[in-house]
Amino acid sequence: MSPTVTEFEVFDIRFPTSDQLDGSDAMNPDPDYSAAYVVLRTDAGDGVEGHGFCFTIGRGNDVTAAAIEALRPYVMGRPVPRGAAELAALYFDLTHDSQLRWLGPEKGVMHMAAGALVNAAWDLAATAAGKPVWQFLADMTPEELVSLVDFRYLTDVLTPDDALAILRTAEPGRAGRAELLRANGYPAYTTSPGWLGYDDEKLVRLSKEAVAEGFAQIKLKVGADLQDDVRRMKLARAAVGPSIRIAVDANQRWDVPDAVRWMEALAPFDPHWIEEPTSPDDILGHAAVRAGQPVKVATGEHVANRVVFKQLLQAGAVDFVQIDAARVAGVNENIAILLLAAKYGVPVCPHAGGVGLCELVQHLSMFDYVAVSGTDEDRVIEYVDHLHEHFVAPVVIDHGRYRTPVAPGFSARMHPESITAHRYPDGPVWQARRTTLEVNS
Amino acid sequence: MSPTVTEFEVFDIRFPTSDQLDGSDAMNPDPDYSAAYVVLRTDAGDGVEGHGFCFTIGRGNDVTAAAIEALRPYVMGRPVPRGAAELAALYFDLTHDSQLRWLGPEKGVMHMAAGALVNAAWDLAATAAGKPVWQFLADMTPEELVSLVDFRYLTDVLTPDDALAILRTAEPGRAGRAELLRANGYPAYTTSPGWLGYDDEKLVRLSKEAVAEGFAQIKLKVGADLQDDVRRMKLARAAVGPSIRIAVDANQRWDVPDAVRWMEALAPFDPHWIEEPTSPDDILGHAAVRAGQPVKVATGEHVANRVVFKQLLQAGAVDFVQIDAARVAGVNENIAILLLAAKYGVPVCPHAGGVGLCELVQHLSMFDYVAVSGTDEDRVIEYVDHLHEHFVAPVVIDHGRYRTPVAPGFSARMHPESITAHRYPDGPVWQARRTTLEVNS
Repeated sequence: MSPTVTEFEVFDIRFPTSDQLDGSDAMNPDPDYSAAYVVLRTDAGDGVEGHGFCFTIGRGNDVTAAAIEALRPYVMGRPVPRGAAELAALYFDLTHDSQLRWLGPEKGVMHMAAGALVNAAWDLAATAAGKPVWQFLADMTPEELVSLVDFRYLTDVLTPDDALAILRTAEPGRAGRAELLRANGYPAYTTSPGWLGYDDEKLVRLSKEAVAEGFAQIKLKVGADLQDDVRRMKLARAAVGPSIRIAVDANQRWDVPDAVRWMEALAPFDPHWIEEPTSPDDILGHAAVRAGQPVKVATGEHVANRVVFKQLLQAGAVDFVQIDAARVAGVNENIAILLLAAKYGVPVCPHAGGVGLCELVQHLSMFDYVAVSGTDEDRVIEYVDHLHEHFVAPVVIDHGRYRTPVAPGFSARMHPESITAHRYPDGPVWQARRTTLEVNS
Repeated sequence: MSPTVTEFEVFDIRFPTSDQLDGSDAMNPDPDYSAAYVVLRTDAGDGVEGHGFCFTIGRGNDVTAAAIEALRPYVMGRPVPRGAAELAALYFDLTHDSQLRWLGPEKGVMHMAAGALVNAAWDLAATAAGKPVWQFLADMTPEELVSLVDFRYLTDVLTPDDALAILRTAEPGRAGRAELLRANGYPAYTTSPGWLGYDDEKLVRLSKEAVAEGFAQIKLKVGADLQDDVRRMKLARAAVGPSIRIAVDANQRWDVPDAVRWMEALAPFDPHWIEEPTSPDDILGHAAVRAGQPVKVATGEHVANRVVFKQLLQAGAVDFVQIDAARVAGVNENIAILLLAAKYGVPVCPHAGGVGLCELVQHLSMFDYVAVSGTDEDRVIEYVDHLHEHFVAPVVIDHGRYRTPVAPGFSARMHPESITAHRYPDGPVWQARRTTLEVNS
């Protein structure tokens, strides 16, 4: 008998981040960073587990946990995934159940839940193989990588043969780039200075600190009030000087005409990109924003799936593709998106932050560098200094770069005591808050 | 004290429709038509309730029910909605919670749940007003109707002033059209002959019966096998003759190149439209299908929200807009979509069938006829003869037309005994099936 998945445990974990306005922006004034977290265990006898999660910002984390539970029958009793064949089969099963597909298709809660399980399976397989996920991926053949992708709805733009050609072109340089990556890491930028809830003094202080720490790019949240944004952008530009890139992020706050007007006003301060100027569903809107003002356009953290990314590229709507490790259906769908971006020559600059998104997505950018696009030019992974202390193998930032992870797996694992403390609503952190609220009321 | 919502009850209701292959198509081989169903009660003392639901096809109906539960705090204790102001406020609250919005935004499980509650509130308000929803809507002023719409992400194409102009243009003819509607009803087409699981004899027999019953349009499911589809289309055309419209529906089965090839092969049999040729997210793909072959294109039952509908119209991707009463955020978001379609002069031909979708959506088409587009030309509401017996005020079809509902409310109410019998997994229908399965195994 080959070993199978024998345990499937789901946790609703929430951190009360809204207390400090960490993570506050024009659309998300008070997020409680949360994870619908799943642990897979097996009877292989090697003690290897698979950990994965959906990232949410509080309310509704229980709905996402319920969606993960709905996928339990596809995972329990399944042969332990070891390589490309099993990891492809699991992804296809989780996203092609005809009844569950009705709830998306391939979008929202149900799709995020599939992503959590796909990522947990990758954590399991890479851990058992003794490799970090980026390397586990970069050691696969082009044919294996192509087998991981669902080309449905992509073939008007990207066929399996196209994908194979991209991967084969990058193949000869893999070893050299992996060596460089281990030596130098991967460029990061930081969003920590720019949350909308921070006052001007804190914005300036943190912007200067970011430069001192070696970051070549920072990011400011914008979109609530134009005069405030002009003042904050001016302060940040004065604080960091002309050579540091300042990206701005509207978190979907605007309609197309607002985005054009706002960015014309901010353009004199040389923003590197405008991120999420409007609805993540509005492909044609992003194209209009890109055409209508001088600043480059980035989006992706809320883009539902590979089909929407395909169109953003087809329509010439974005200058930067911002993948997210935990919104689409995990590693497999992100490989499709990396291939689409490579086909169009558009740089991938991942969204991160939240809970554990930096930990996950670094693997995908590093894999992209080694085996897909073959370059880190114009590419940078978001870094936010929140909640890393809860992870067993947190990201390491060194002079504005992600150090290349060496521990086996997907860096997805939280400390057991963090899970226990932050379980919602019964963990001690939340119990204590309830008591405090009752006393104060 | 003004009366408030005091009870909020959610049911997971499923019908074992997969037994008969009713509803079988190329993507959904064995649906169990289901409803995550919600009932609102108040302390108004008038006994009026509000009923609403999400339609799903089986597995995951529990996840949708959990999503409705997550919205409970927005509804319980709220003043009983009576008119446009309260119905607008509820819709905005349900779709703008910043934490829950992260789970979409405005798509998938969370958005469908908001739709169920919005629709339940309309059922409640219209019932209390003693009017069917179509009339309750058609009696509102253009200003009230505009206040119901969320114009965020629409203003590059449709502003509140544009909407007001459309509604004012239709205003003088309202009374006359309402009279015609009460006399003549609204045109229907039937999908009952064309399910993919039916054999040729049943297809031919049901097609002829549909024509004999007065339908001027039928629909066939296609997309699994081209030679089968050519044969079935040929049989259906021979059965109904040249003057009856035959729509075909691929249920998202194809990539763009497949859709073009397939429809070129079916074109000689004069299909009226090709429905869902590819992914509902693929705006540019639908535009390419429309440009690449001679058959008109329809889509919408899986389109996530008004922003995607906006782009389908902007891109010239569709000849028919197929709204669904229960996928987007209910009546309010569907008014936005009706206005967008009116702006572009594209006919709205709703998706229906499933559980209770005919009952709901007839109100929206009739409202469109009376107060928005002002015409029923080229318009037709889908009709499927399934599960109507479970509703207190089922649709009535007469010579291929929907009779205009006169009972107050949204026709959304199921018989209490149907709810009790089909509760999943503990209702007697499901208990009995489990016992049968155990005996047979």
